[in-house]
Amino acid sequence: MGEAAKVHPDYKPQTAGSLKDYLARLPDVASRLGGKPDGWTVEEVGDGNLNLVFIVKGPSGGIAVKQALPYVRLVGEAWPLPLSRAHYEYMTLTHHGKAAPGLTPTIYHYDEAMALIVMELLQPHIIMRRGMIAGTVYPLFAGVISTYMANTLFATSDMALSAKDKKALIGDFAGNTALCKITEDLIFTDPYRIAELNRWTKPWLDGHAAAFRSDGPLKVAVSRLKVKFLSSAEALIHGDLHTGSVMLTEQDTRIIDPEFAFVGPMGFDVGAVIANLVINYLSQVGHEEKPGARDAYRDWVLRTAEEVWVQFRAKFIANWEKGGIGDAYPRDLFAGAEGQRTLAAEREAYMDRLWQDTVGFASAKMIRRVLGLAHNIDLEWIKDERLRATAEARVLELARDMMVNTGDYRKITDITAAARKANASQPKLTG
Amino acid sequence: MGEAAKVHPDYKPQTAGSLKDYLARLPDVASRLGGKPDGWTVEEVGDGNLNLVFIVKGPSGGIAVKQALPYVRLVGEAWPLPLSRAHYEYMTLTHHGKAAPGLTPTIYHYDEAMALIVMELLQPHIIMRRGMIAGTVYPLFAGVISTYMANTLFATSDMALSAKDKKALIGDFAGNTALCKITEDLIFTDPYRIAELNRWTKPWLDGHAAAFRSDGPLKVAVSRLKVKFLSSAEALIHGDLHTGSVMLTEQDTRIIDPEFAFVGPMGFDVGAVIANLVINYLSQVGHEEKPGARDAYRDWVLRTAEEVWVQFRAKFIANWEKGGIGDAYPRDLFAGAEGQRTLAAEREAYMDRLWQDTVGFASAKMIRRVLGLAHNIDLEWIKDERLRATAEARVLELARDMMVNTGDYRKITDITAAARKANASQPKLTG
Repeated sequence: MGEAAKVHPDYKPQTAGSLKDYLARLPDVASRLGGKPDGWTVEEVGDGNLNLVFIVKGPSGGIAVKQALPYVRLVGEAWPLPLSRAHYEYMTLTHHGKAAPGLTPTIYHYDEAMALIVMELLQPHIIMRRGMIAGTVYPLFAGVISTYMANTLFATSDMALSAKDKKALIGDFAGNTALCKITEDLIFTDPYRIAELNRWTKPWLDGHAAAFRSDGPLKVAVSRLKVKFLSSAEALIHGDLHTGSVMLTEQDTRIIDPEFAFVGPMGFDVGAVIANLVINYLSQVGHEEKPGARDAYRDWVLRTAEEVWVQFRAKFIANWEKGGIGDAYPRDLFAGAEGQRTLAAEREAYMDRLWQDTVGFASAKMIRRVLGLAHNIDLEWIKDERLRATAEARVLELARDMMVNTGDYRKITDITAAARKANASQPKLTG
Repeated sequence: MGEAAKVHPDYKPQTAGSLKDYLARLPDVASRLGGKPDGWTVEEVGDGNLNLVFIVKGPSGGIAVKQALPYVRLVGEAWPLPLSRAHYEYMTLTHHGKAAPGLTPTIYHYDEAMALIVMELLQPHIIMRRGMIAGTVYPLFAGVISTYMANTLFATSDMALSAKDKKALIGDFAGNTALCKITEDLIFTDPYRIAELNRWTKPWLDGHAAAFRSDGPLKVAVSRLKVKFLSSAEALIHGDLHTGSVMLTEQDTRIIDPEFAFVGPMGFDVGAVIANLVINYLSQVGHEEKPGARDAYRDWVLRTAEEVWVQFRAKFIANWEKGGIGDAYPRDLFAGAEGQRTLAAEREAYMDRLWQDTVGFASAKMIRRVLGLAHNIDLEWIKDERLRATAEARVLELARDMMVNTGDYRKITDITAAARKANASQPKLTG
């Protein structure tokens, strides 16, 4: 781990010029681009918070190149961040690509010293979040994301793996602490205390922010979620599974950017997807041309949230039925018709517990996007600040209830119904 | 991990003769023994299931030497077991010795290649289990074991450590899978299915064994405990904390043999202590000279179980109040008088949840000692087989209720009261 956090002597951040030379030395990649390097175009397009991203095109085809920087791009060198995150991203793409074939970008080349991954250029894919702000329907999304989660989480869980392989996986990702710490601080801690990095739509949400900082039950609830994040080694999770980590067309959906991956609680991934759909739903008030213009889209968003959970649950159970060869719930303990019935009921109970985790983590993801450092453009792009604050307050109030009264949300339709109610509410703003 | 599982070329199992030569080359150890090697006595005393243990004495003093064998001693070379367990034992003794000074044996020398630890000779200490079978009262035990657990578990938990240090600890122990697998199989699986290694007092317990193997709710409950054991990385646990891992006199108590250690659920350690006290309590019927002769001792045993939990709970909370500088429940989230009250209430709630884990794991420990491979001499030494089976059936019936109806046991006195009731019961035996 200590090693991985260091910068390799050969490391240097790529520029358009240096990258051509670099790629020219990789025969497979060079032939994929075709022609000569001087006929290649290189564009730096990284719009994320952390890394360099280049799109390189040649006569025969294109590729994407992602390179980690030794600091947080959004903040600068004052916030160092280890290059090893490229290693964890690469490892996760490998694991998840195997568990969910075709749903992650294909890797062409990985360079540990350079903290650089050369991968498939996803084109004409766009970031799902942007499509949803524009009101684009993605009818295949629920099916794909539920498969991705059901396959990647199941395949790396104790129901699929021997304890030995599972512990090796835990060990392999135990060094990704710097990225985990970002989550621990920005999601589970800062929004609930005075912290320099917090920001919210002022003055409108001052009252909400202050109330959250002195809300005992809420702070206990988020701390219990943090404990789960710190100590619940259930499966290799993506760790940042929002709609900004999904690139898609209407036909093809891919999950990218798993650099926050580690062996953690499954509900964190599932909750992230649900949360970002609910946030988008509540943001539509700021994107429709006139009131009600996006009502059909709103319905699609919530139906999608419902489908995500329902399909995830069914697919996870199906994976378990088919591939439950791990050390948890050993098959020969539940042999025979009676044993099968018992295990089938326990699978449902297991998913009920995972659902409760999902509700909790979803709420934490919602709150951090309104009161913490990193906001979503679903909300940020609402120009009218009072309207934005109204949408944000609805997110906060719904999330607060989900976090403190998690047990009241027994099924996904309890969340979507509450979201509809929140969308019709008139939160009390400051100022 | 792979490396640690291999036998180093320099490794050889020691004999009395070779060990003298070996120790003579360690100046500190040799001077502790005093005189010349030919004046030293070496006795192999390993009565455990896994390792060689030598007691070496010289004119100036004595030492103990523990060496791992590349197989399970009890079974032979047919059951290989990696030497790396010596490494994990040594690391745990180091961590735990720091967290609970004076409660573990002092280490004089550790040899990784030889899988050998030279440590303090505990004399005239005896194994606590033997003392309890003889009816010896240890008035200091509850105080010491509760301190040991409160200190070692707290110091290695998310309440004391940064997430980074905690994950490093998880990684450091992620390779101890062979030892964990013994627990996973022998405690959480085999007693509930037909398994070659199972044994019980026949024919008297045939009915109980068959009933347990077809007991759906019980198998679900033990599988949930297994999932917790596989995925709940709460603290560096001893992993085998029964009364055979305690050596003591009336004045001095030491915890030995943490080779099963890994970062797992805290309730597993606490439950092991409670379980072994309850087993001893229920075994007294086979050790008293005449009915009732051990009644005062029985009272002491159950009072001790009560004290263990009550003191552990109080000490863990006190450690948390004093040293809660880890990433879980960050202090500045609970600043001020109101925040302090909120956190104080949550600490109690945390311990309530840990208590429920403790009840569950205690029950699993009780069942495995009657239906699984490794039994306790508390019960094994009862010569009258029908009487032994009666005591064992009481253990099983109490444990079954604790495992399936865990929520009914809200406090430690619920267990001790149920133990008294079990002790007065007349279980239905087979044959």
